[in-house]
Amino acid sequence: MELAKRRGFLWPSFELYGGASGFYDFGPLGSTLKNKIVEKWREHFVRREDSLEIDSPTLTPEEVLRASGHLEHFVDLMSECGKCGQSFKISELVKERTGLDVEGKPREEVEALLEEKGITCPDCGGRLGKVLEFNTMFRTTIGPGGRKVGYLRPETAQGIFVDFRRLWRHGRERLPLPVAQIGKGYRNEISPRQGMIRLREFTMAELEVFFDPENPTHPSFGKVAGERLRLWRAEDEMKGEERMVEVSAREAVEKGMVCHQLMAYYLALTKRFLMDLGLPEERLRFREQTPGQRAHYSRETWDAEVRTERFGWVEVAGIAYRTDYDLSRHAEASGESLSVVLQPGKRKVVCHVVEPSFGIDRIFYCVLETAYLQGRKGLRFKKELSPLEVGVFPLLRRDGLPEKAREVAELLKQRGFWTEYDEAGSIGRRYARADEVGIPYCVTVDHRTLSDGTVTIRERETARQVRTPLEKLPSVLSSLLKDELRFEEAGTPLEEKEEGEEEEEGEEG
Amino acid sequence: MELAKRRGFLWPSFELYGGASGFYDFGPLGSTLKNKIVEKWREHFVRREDSLEIDSPTLTPEEVLRASGHLEHFVDLMSECGKCGQSFKISELVKERTGLDVEGKPREEVEALLEEKGITCPDCGGRLGKVLEFNTMFRTTIGPGGRKVGYLRPETAQGIFVDFRRLWRHGRERLPLPVAQIGKGYRNEISPRQGMIRLREFTMAELEVFFDPENPTHPSFGKVAGERLRLWRAEDEMKGEERMVEVSAREAVEKGMVCHQLMAYYLALTKRFLMDLGLPEERLRFREQTPGQRAHYSRETWDAEVRTERFGWVEVAGIAYRTDYDLSRHAEASGESLSVVLQPGKRKVVCHVVEPSFGIDRIFYCVLETAYLQGRKGLRFKKELSPLEVGVFPLLRRDGLPEKAREVAELLKQRGFWTEYDEAGSIGRRYARADEVGIPYCVTVDHRTLSDGTVTIRERETARQVRTPLEKLPSVLSSLLKDELRFEEAGTPLEEKEEGEEEEEGEEG
Repeated sequence: MELAKRRGFLWPSFELYGGASGFYDFGPLGSTLKNKIVEKWREHFVRREDSLEIDSPTLTPEEVLRASGHLEHFVDLMSECGKCGQSFKISELVKERTGLDVEGKPREEVEALLEEKGITCPDCGGRLGKVLEFNTMFRTTIGPGGRKVGYLRPETAQGIFVDFRRLWRHGRERLPLPVAQIGKGYRNEISPRQGMIRLREFTMAELEVFFDPENPTHPSFGKVAGERLRLWRAEDEMKGEERMVEVSAREAVEKGMVCHQLMAYYLALTKRFLMDLGLPEERLRFREQTPGQRAHYSRETWDAEVRTERFGWVEVAGIAYRTDYDLSRHAEASGESLSVVLQPGKRKVVCHVVEPSFGIDRIFYCVLETAYLQGRKGLRFKKELSPLEVGVFPLLRRDGLPEKAREVAELLKQRGFWTEYDEAGSIGRRYARADEVGIPYCVTVDHRTLSDGTVTIRERETARQVRTPLEKLPSVLSSLLKDELRFEEAGTPLEEKEEGEEEEEGEEG
Repeated sequence: MELAKRRGFLWPSFELYGGASGFYDFGPLGSTLKNKIVEKWREHFVRREDSLEIDSPTLTPEEVLRASGHLEHFVDLMSECGKCGQSFKISELVKERTGLDVEGKPREEVEALLEEKGITCPDCGGRLGKVLEFNTMFRTTIGPGGRKVGYLRPETAQGIFVDFRRLWRHGRERLPLPVAQIGKGYRNEISPRQGMIRLREFTMAELEVFFDPENPTHPSFGKVAGERLRLWRAEDEMKGEERMVEVSAREAVEKGMVCHQLMAYYLALTKRFLMDLGLPEERLRFREQTPGQRAHYSRETWDAEVRTERFGWVEVAGIAYRTDYDLSRHAEASGESLSVVLQPGKRKVVCHVVEPSFGIDRIFYCVLETAYLQGRKGLRFKKELSPLEVGVFPLLRRDGLPEKAREVAELLKQRGFWTEYDEAGSIGRRYARADEVGIPYCVTVDHRTLSDGTVTIRERETARQVRTPLEKLPSVLSSLLKDELRFEEAGTPLEEKEEGEEEEEGEEG
């Protein structure tokens, strides 16, 4: 986290005013990395899957969230210390003190437990007050007069459900119909104390997949059927056993471990997406939520978890079988029918929904931690995810080299590369700085560039160098970043002597 | 707007519950178009300009917005009808009824004017109540207990100002230092009635450019100095004259029309960005705000305006000279110094700021309206902005053509193209549907594809067709979309006869 702050990936928000817990700023490198993660998600879950993507408001009128059940169910149990006045989320407190999981348990039962275990204020030891239900949606009013109540959405999903009739038409009345939304979600946490892992404002990427409950299959299941899934089933967790089962997506369905093919399809896709971000397979698993842990709308939920050094296993996505809960509730509350007629047979159904929902900030954290753990000399991202893709350096600060190098940097920026120009300090120090933030390729402009129009490219991982003509540079870099070209094919290898000379020359610069 | 709704670009939010004014949903094509506009902005104002981009929360603690002056100044005058209870924004009401501009005028003066002109409720004719000040920030509380007040940010800028010290370090202490942020902004409008133009929740893209007040120049000014700017100066507007002055960016500075070079630099960049979206030059102008119109933090503001058919001239961006207002206010409120020491001379300064601020939703509207006005057979976007870039059609629904066409569509999606596969109806009807939503290129798979591996590409604008080998398709399409390749060079022209045959065959399909 020190490196992350120092190199501008992220830092706590509003530090100038003492900070506000549960809020983080993405700095210059962080915001680019986050955008790249979002784009990868879009590639995997929208573009390749023919999903419809929509973008609806974060502010949501009360009637929508009453119908969805959030007004009633989106609550945490809390208690305030009678002595110091600090508020606490009870389930976290109980977990810390006793290891017990009281998520979803009734208020009275939890209050009795606090008493029984003698749990007091962790800050001052004071006696805790009554256990209260606290709705964790941020509340506001829309327009003047304060009559129209609205909330910041707790999930992007409801914006999709209320649009279902339009989406059904735009999707040409086909099932399964995946609809995506990427955007902010909010949760007014009682007292967030886990940095990036528990935010009050976060970025979500969600897919609501509408399907015929009598046919929970996916036409492309064959493509992922062999994908190995590592499952921790609820029945094992409830027995207190942390036992993993490893099966293919197909087996998971056939053996009844996962409720149906459509669900297994998205488990497999989720694994592929996470691995495409460079997260190592051995740090991934799917944990089935126990009945008490599940949200009010879900019949079966699998959390995708990533093992981190700092926080242990972290939930980065939930794949929930929401059934027809949402569509039925909205149909009832609005008085409008949300059922559809399926063509062969003219069967009338209310679609069921599988929802893969991703926490982008948590994924960001995992990607950053992985880059830190894997890099011997600083951060090491999967190349295409690096927030800076190319460094451009003049070997010396004279002889027209800076002018030429700036021209090269300009060209690369025009061609869409995230490029950093650097002329400060020796070439060795500049390479080291680039290595630290994970720039995979550095281009150096030297005297030969002026005479024959070639530059050197240096590969971060191996410190090997090749010479490449300038006119080929953009296409070569683009192929290297996508791993479509091996480095030794990117140009003529630099001779040891030549390299040595340049290094030395550089030190003067 | 009918076409926009029907084809899934946008629609009013929460229709299922009767709607909520001031909120719009971007549908499947709309969200892609919006994302492309945002990416273009990032290309112009971040990547090419070496700006630092950050991403800070939308929820903002009260102390930040008290220091920034928004608690005091971000107010509109309103009045409620005594009879029907409807609320109105007074400046809009007065403008509609009398043509007068009372924006920024004191409450008492405006109240007297209402009386004098006999202005009543436009809905029911009832008498209007007292004129009140209404703060148009959405208010909420953070955490339990309701003690910590927060607001949804009215602009992304404050998130940048409070981070200034970190940004100064990450930007390696250079000036001018441009810092960008793209994200949601909110304004609790009293009664929004102009569709997309006046939203309560909107997407902004802002740049805060920190600079030395003694040196308001830009190192790249030379690149844009010749750009022609069409200016409507405040002194002319105040005389009631809608007189445009056309000058180069350099002349605008030299003649003192624009306060300094840095300001003129961003006016020129703004024009280039808007034109790169396909907006026609003759529909663009810059209007200088009069002293009464300017925000509380601004010494000079130029609005970039686009002429629309539906709403007349629409402000899509404001380029404001914010001076050291914000940094000084935050330094004072936080008790921390926000001045910097400039190296040559060790001069201590509080940076001044020029802020180009863009309303992405309004730009979206202008791009969509332009696409509508320019397309004879539906929407016509600048090619690279088209939300769907390629249509892929099997000529017939048999003989293995759909399978092959799906394979081609799959390949293109994998390579990053926004691709639509369509096999429904005759080939002519499919071309017409593609033309309507503005798909610039359609690829058709026919019997020859199966034998020699070539496909036809059809260009929307001219309906001309060429045959191209499949292995070249991705690179050819990519060059065509970027206008780097002329269509006649994209393959072998189709003979009239051949084309005729296929068209006929298609009709059976």
